[in-house]
Amino acid sequence: MELELRQLGVCIVGATGAVGLEFLRVLEQRDFPIGRLRLFASAKSVGKRIAWKGTEVAVEALAPGVFRGSELGLFSPGSAASKEWAPIAAREDCLVVDNSSAFRSDPAVPLVVPEVNAHAIARHKGIIANPNCSTIQMVVALKPLHDAARVRRVIVTTFQSVSGAGARAIEELREESRAVLDGRTYERKFFPHPIAFDAIPQIPQKDAFTPNGYTSEEMKMVHETRKIMEDERIQVCPTCVRVPVFRAHSESVLAELERPLTAAQARELLARAPGVVLVDDPARQAYPLAVDAAGKDPVYVGRVRDDISNQQAGPASPGGIAFWCVSDNLRKGAALNAVQIAERAFGLPAGREVR
Amino acid sequence: MELELRQLGVCIVGATGAVGLEFLRVLEQRDFPIGRLRLFASAKSVGKRIAWKGTEVAVEALAPGVFRGSELGLFSPGSAASKEWAPIAAREDCLVVDNSSAFRSDPAVPLVVPEVNAHAIARHKGIIANPNCSTIQMVVALKPLHDAARVRRVIVTTFQSVSGAGARAIEELREESRAVLDGRTYERKFFPHPIAFDAIPQIPQKDAFTPNGYTSEEMKMVHETRKIMEDERIQVCPTCVRVPVFRAHSESVLAELERPLTAAQARELLARAPGVVLVDDPARQAYPLAVDAAGKDPVYVGRVRDDISNQQAGPASPGGIAFWCVSDNLRKGAALNAVQIAERAFGLPAGREVR
Repeated sequence: MELELRQLGVCIVGATGAVGLEFLRVLEQRDFPIGRLRLFASAKSVGKRIAWKGTEVAVEALAPGVFRGSELGLFSPGSAASKEWAPIAAREDCLVVDNSSAFRSDPAVPLVVPEVNAHAIARHKGIIANPNCSTIQMVVALKPLHDAARVRRVIVTTFQSVSGAGARAIEELREESRAVLDGRTYERKFFPHPIAFDAIPQIPQKDAFTPNGYTSEEMKMVHETRKIMEDERIQVCPTCVRVPVFRAHSESVLAELERPLTAAQARELLARAPGVVLVDDPARQAYPLAVDAAGKDPVYVGRVRDDISNQQAGPASPGGIAFWCVSDNLRKGAALNAVQIAERAFGLPAGREVR
Repeated sequence: MELELRQLGVCIVGATGAVGLEFLRVLEQRDFPIGRLRLFASAKSVGKRIAWKGTEVAVEALAPGVFRGSELGLFSPGSAASKEWAPIAAREDCLVVDNSSAFRSDPAVPLVVPEVNAHAIARHKGIIANPNCSTIQMVVALKPLHDAARVRRVIVTTFQSVSGAGARAIEELREESRAVLDGRTYERKFFPHPIAFDAIPQIPQKDAFTPNGYTSEEMKMVHETRKIMEDERIQVCPTCVRVPVFRAHSESVLAELERPLTAAQARELLARAPGVVLVDDPARQAYPLAVDAAGKDPVYVGRVRDDISNQQAGPASPGGIAFWCVSDNLRKGAALNAVQIAERAFGLPAGREVR
């Protein structure tokens, strides 16, 4: 098939960030058919050389016209830069898959998790938005339950790793942890409170709170879940917490359903759901863990059980399923999901899964 | 008042453990009126000398008769030893406040959190049970909401510190964290999975799972909440998670209420609730944190907000309040709560609060 052999011109915007570097890793691991690769970043990184398949690619500055001749732009330069440059790229016939929050709530821009709403890709007008990391892994796990029994309400508490906040956050966890273990004081540079051996119920680390008391990260989980699942009736009560974990987010999820579903049925559905790997064997103390999910592709789901808080509520009450899901926030939560969107948008075969 | 000047004979059973040592700290900080202090522990600790108010007290072996002449026994030797020795102490006229799970579900034994059900103390027949750490801090925060609007359902996810699992768990977090930071391998001795820079959805670390898929720790939160709040209708869906935090448990709680209550009203109730300190100022990024609560007495509550997942459910739907609560699991979660029970049982004035 000719399409599969086609080589694409690919631009990575925000190439030096944590997600930018993960784009490169995912593209190489999935053997994405790249003709010409161009890397872009902010002024201070221009000229820097980044390793790519045995050679090096120099980081360039963004300018009008640079996207011409490239078919795909993988963007993760932050919301402001995405807002400015994604429309320019789109006008230059370069399809943008944008990892920032800039376009996620724009009704004209599809917000896509391929396992959930791949069909929305076709509606794009040059830009496709990649959802928030916490939302992506949750909706991948919710999708099979929704198809079988309709999710009507989700109560979720996240355990989010520091890598979601970038390289400086990773460095701070490392440095502050060392200081605590050595009994030294540490001067914080990034988080508003200690992250080492602590849990911070605030994401992001700046200007987080909205007027209703929820953080912007939490409100993303509310709005993005509805848009991706294409069901405005789904209610979400989220609590987003940063924990001293380097990579991969964990989530404690309670899904209330319109129709009854047992834990055994939910386990069966999850075991064959695309993008999901079920790790659920309490007798062997097997359940998903952040340290195991780091660097991997799937959304790992375990601790699947009936909602015991609904058992005395009578026959009119909805069923509920509680579970624990873990996924690499830089991969399925960011770079991998974007590349999967691109594979579908260009009719490419799915790359090999890392698990 | 003569009662206040009375000196009590006090036995601490399990004196060398994490909670045992915390008993000593709390008794001294609260100026508990101790006449004779006797310390007991397992065979391997007998003879060990433990500092107490400028002197040292030798650890003794348990034997029938040792409790005679002591009015109070603070027990934390583990469930099996409590089961064996607490009835003996009770028969020897020594009131036992037991921190193990041995008697918590016994209908003849009061299970007490003084801020919630102090009146139950009077019903004791020689033994009073101290609840599970995760449950204590949650019910202290739920109590004012329950009084005002009736809690009908609680969805809770815990972030539990390693100190709840004892000295070896603390050592493992320290050693494994160092190894990860140094890039060394670490051979686990205690937890079933890495605790450093990870989150483990299983408590306790051995034989945790019950047939319904919930852990014994989670089922404690279900049953103990009902017994302490004296309301068998309260439904609880818990997920208990161990996190790399040394001390103090954090909890993400959603309380569904029978009658509507706004977040502003909940905040007002919590601000004047006994045992609670409200830390809730999003504009200043102020909310409870484990590192701040460690070594302190109160249950800190913050991030109080309306359950936004109930807003479209119509007028028949109950209200809900989400919050984040943090407390020192060795103090209010164990030693402090037991000493507060003892103060009430003997009609003593409450000791000074550490906050």
